[in-house]
Amino acid sequence: MTVNTQSLIKLFRSVLPAKSVISDRAALRVYECDGLSAYRQVPRLVVLPDSIAQVQGIMAVCQEHAIPIVGRGGGTGLSGGALPHQDGIVLSLAKMNRVLEINRLGRTARVQPGVRNLAISEAVKSLGLYFAPDPSSQIACTIGGNVAENAGGVHCLKYGLTLHNILGLKVATMEGDLVDLGGESLDSPGFNLLSLMIGSEGMLGIVVEVTVKLLPIPKSAKVIMGVFDSVQCAGDSVAAIIGQGIIPAGIEMMDNPAIRAAEDFVKAGYPVDAQAMLLCELDGTHEEVDDQIRLVREILSANGAVESRLARNEEEKALFWSGRKAAFPAVGRISPDYYCIDGTIPRKSIGEVLTEIYRLSEQYQLRVANVFHAGDGNLHPLILYDANLPGEFEKTEELGSRILELCIRVGGTITGEHGVGVEKIGEMCIQFNDAERNQFHAVRKCFDPGQLLNPGKAIPTLARCAEHNAMHVHRGELPFPELERF
Amino acid sequence: MTVNTQSLIKLFRSVLPAKSVISDRAALRVYECDGLSAYRQVPRLVVLPDSIAQVQGIMAVCQEHAIPIVGRGGGTGLSGGALPHQDGIVLSLAKMNRVLEINRLGRTARVQPGVRNLAISEAVKSLGLYFAPDPSSQIACTIGGNVAENAGGVHCLKYGLTLHNILGLKVATMEGDLVDLGGESLDSPGFNLLSLMIGSEGMLGIVVEVTVKLLPIPKSAKVIMGVFDSVQCAGDSVAAIIGQGIIPAGIEMMDNPAIRAAEDFVKAGYPVDAQAMLLCELDGTHEEVDDQIRLVREILSANGAVESRLARNEEEKALFWSGRKAAFPAVGRISPDYYCIDGTIPRKSIGEVLTEIYRLSEQYQLRVANVFHAGDGNLHPLILYDANLPGEFEKTEELGSRILELCIRVGGTITGEHGVGVEKIGEMCIQFNDAERNQFHAVRKCFDPGQLLNPGKAIPTLARCAEHNAMHVHRGELPFPELERF
Repeated sequence: MTVNTQSLIKLFRSVLPAKSVISDRAALRVYECDGLSAYRQVPRLVVLPDSIAQVQGIMAVCQEHAIPIVGRGGGTGLSGGALPHQDGIVLSLAKMNRVLEINRLGRTARVQPGVRNLAISEAVKSLGLYFAPDPSSQIACTIGGNVAENAGGVHCLKYGLTLHNILGLKVATMEGDLVDLGGESLDSPGFNLLSLMIGSEGMLGIVVEVTVKLLPIPKSAKVIMGVFDSVQCAGDSVAAIIGQGIIPAGIEMMDNPAIRAAEDFVKAGYPVDAQAMLLCELDGTHEEVDDQIRLVREILSANGAVESRLARNEEEKALFWSGRKAAFPAVGRISPDYYCIDGTIPRKSIGEVLTEIYRLSEQYQLRVANVFHAGDGNLHPLILYDANLPGEFEKTEELGSRILELCIRVGGTITGEHGVGVEKIGEMCIQFNDAERNQFHAVRKCFDPGQLLNPGKAIPTLARCAEHNAMHVHRGELPFPELERF
Repeated sequence: MTVNTQSLIKLFRSVLPAKSVISDRAALRVYECDGLSAYRQVPRLVVLPDSIAQVQGIMAVCQEHAIPIVGRGGGTGLSGGALPHQDGIVLSLAKMNRVLEINRLGRTARVQPGVRNLAISEAVKSLGLYFAPDPSSQIACTIGGNVAENAGGVHCLKYGLTLHNILGLKVATMEGDLVDLGGESLDSPGFNLLSLMIGSEGMLGIVVEVTVKLLPIPKSAKVIMGVFDSVQCAGDSVAAIIGQGIIPAGIEMMDNPAIRAAEDFVKAGYPVDAQAMLLCELDGTHEEVDDQIRLVREILSANGAVESRLARNEEEKALFWSGRKAAFPAVGRISPDYYCIDGTIPRKSIGEVLTEIYRLSEQYQLRVANVFHAGDGNLHPLILYDANLPGEFEKTEELGSRILELCIRVGGTITGEHGVGVEKIGEMCIQFNDAERNQFHAVRKCFDPGQLLNPGKAIPTLARCAEHNAMHVHRGELPFPELERF
């Protein structure tokens, strides 16, 4: 540590107002974790710039004195991407929360990174437009955080992830430059650094402005609930609906433990005896939606649904969704703690993977409730545990790893929309081979040679992977020796 | 040049069959240019691998002996991206042209890079699916070339560019590794190297396998023609249609010189006295399309269309499109040579930009016919010239540059879908500032430290830009001094 904290405070006060530099221990505690509260670390300082120039000033100080920088949006991330670094500062974008420009004809909006996800849609609602990505945390999470983690949501099956809905970024680099990536045009010359930046978990630069794509609000949107007495049938229905050429706006699945927890909490009228339930939303023109509802009903029934219910009006539609939206806190009511896992699998493997998760749940003696974006195969198993029982968190993390390894084994990935952060850094050693990880490191160094931006996250070092993989071998539990990369 | 050509032939013959190494001067001539035939260079050798291992073998030889590699797909590119390097080899992917796997439920196909664009849609047509990007050259161009140039086409307004329709790539790197980028899942952990690779013009690696996204063929597709006596009205109509919340499958514009040339060639029934014409295709369900056709008719008429014609059947629809599709060869019939420019502008500036192009056309005394993807503001001015007149090609290139600078000035970019290649490398100095170009170079070096992959293309050196910008200043014709980056 080359500069002490008192000197650092002075340096920051030369580039931003004193009130924007937080050094009080109690105030710093607010920033000790993000949505992955199992990991905590109080930062040395928190800075809250309210202009691009202030962001650049902060970065220049950090560059000169080799101070790690952890960017932070709404702090709702679930993989620990905004977990502070012990020697570093947290750079919060919370004050940069203005919508700068709305272009109705071009259907774009230029906003600051600290604007909340939902605030964008609210700002353009009167124009009949909205911003499509809708993570569950959309009331609180910011567009800057969405960009950093490439956030998804219920509707990303049809409308894409954050990546697919961002047209341009202005980024402050560690070298002190401001670069404009992308823009309002569909294509842009040069390498696609815009896409590279999205999902880079704050390791390549600090995003200071975002130009988003806006979509017209669909004319009609209806929701149908499918009820099943086996998860396999529910999984097969998802694959069949999509295989039929239908792209639902969203298709969500919950298993029995999740249904029970949600129903108990919000009284949405969910079938508490069902083994699985689907919520399928279709949007578009009235005819299109009605056509597709008819087809989806047929498919559900052909795949063994014991019942399918169409929400008859807006109130019932909201009721159907209420249980799904409250599923996480609902699970929180029935267990002292829960851990949300985020992996993706091919749609065809849903039934098989759930069956294996139940087996692992038995083996580890930990309850698991499954709530997930079934359409894009994005699982969210919630592992129920009690952090006060010695060793239970470690056991939970191990079960989480096994589930992610299972995702990789069936051809999926270890993250669907939550990012890698600190949470899945071990699994990155399984997902990627040395050549792939080396390529990530090379890219990182060409943006941030001193590796000051969010160090220790997302991309494991080779040493760390050697250790991780050795541990796997040592335990004699190599999850899938048939894979070549071991 | 560290190794002579005879030795190089021997080295290549150790990794691929003799017949796959072309060294005969006449045979090499076939590869001396791509679709931008104004630039020609015979390569030292051409190699035609038919497996990933052979590609890796070739790259290892080139890496060891510092031989530049120019990748080549169908050779239809319009920016000289596949122009050979005088000291280098052309690595043609033409033999790697197999569709490897079709996943009906997942709606994806895994193909080799040499598969033709249209061949993908043909292979999955019986499943009711297609691959959306449709560059005009789709009969001949390959998916590998589409990936390298991030190709677009008539339908990219609604369905996106190549970037938006690729799920995964297998790439051979100069370091000798095979890396898998992306995959069938919507999201992927780690940096988004998949998107980075798309549009990187063969400078970051050689793509050896491509996983594409397939879409269901729309149930209905109709085309309406709008006829105008001013380009401004036609341009305003485009902005108004999109501003209304309609996303046409495609919306194309032609001006009077283009209409006349096309009509003269294919007799599509185009209005030869009109100043501008729009072709607007709407697709979706029957009701949706009919609704939108009605709306589009109203908008056309409100924006001063003198006529709007709906194609009454499939034959007429094909006829409407035939003139647009034949526009380039049609222009080729009325001029010894033509040069196709590719820039993008915000939709709202269409009228203004065309007016300025006509003024420049007068000033340079060169005819210009405009045919373009109006919906995404992607211009294709065709400059008519005669290469046999001394100085006329240089004058044409200069006019092209002025048009691209105009695109930048109104907030657009210098390429919509053709890439930078050798063609627009000078304009890259205007589009990007030093920091942005340095970032491109840094990224390039982290994939290819020896800069052997397609050297001299796409990303200008700082020295080249110093020269380019100095020339601009020297001529006293600085196109827009108000811009800060000068």
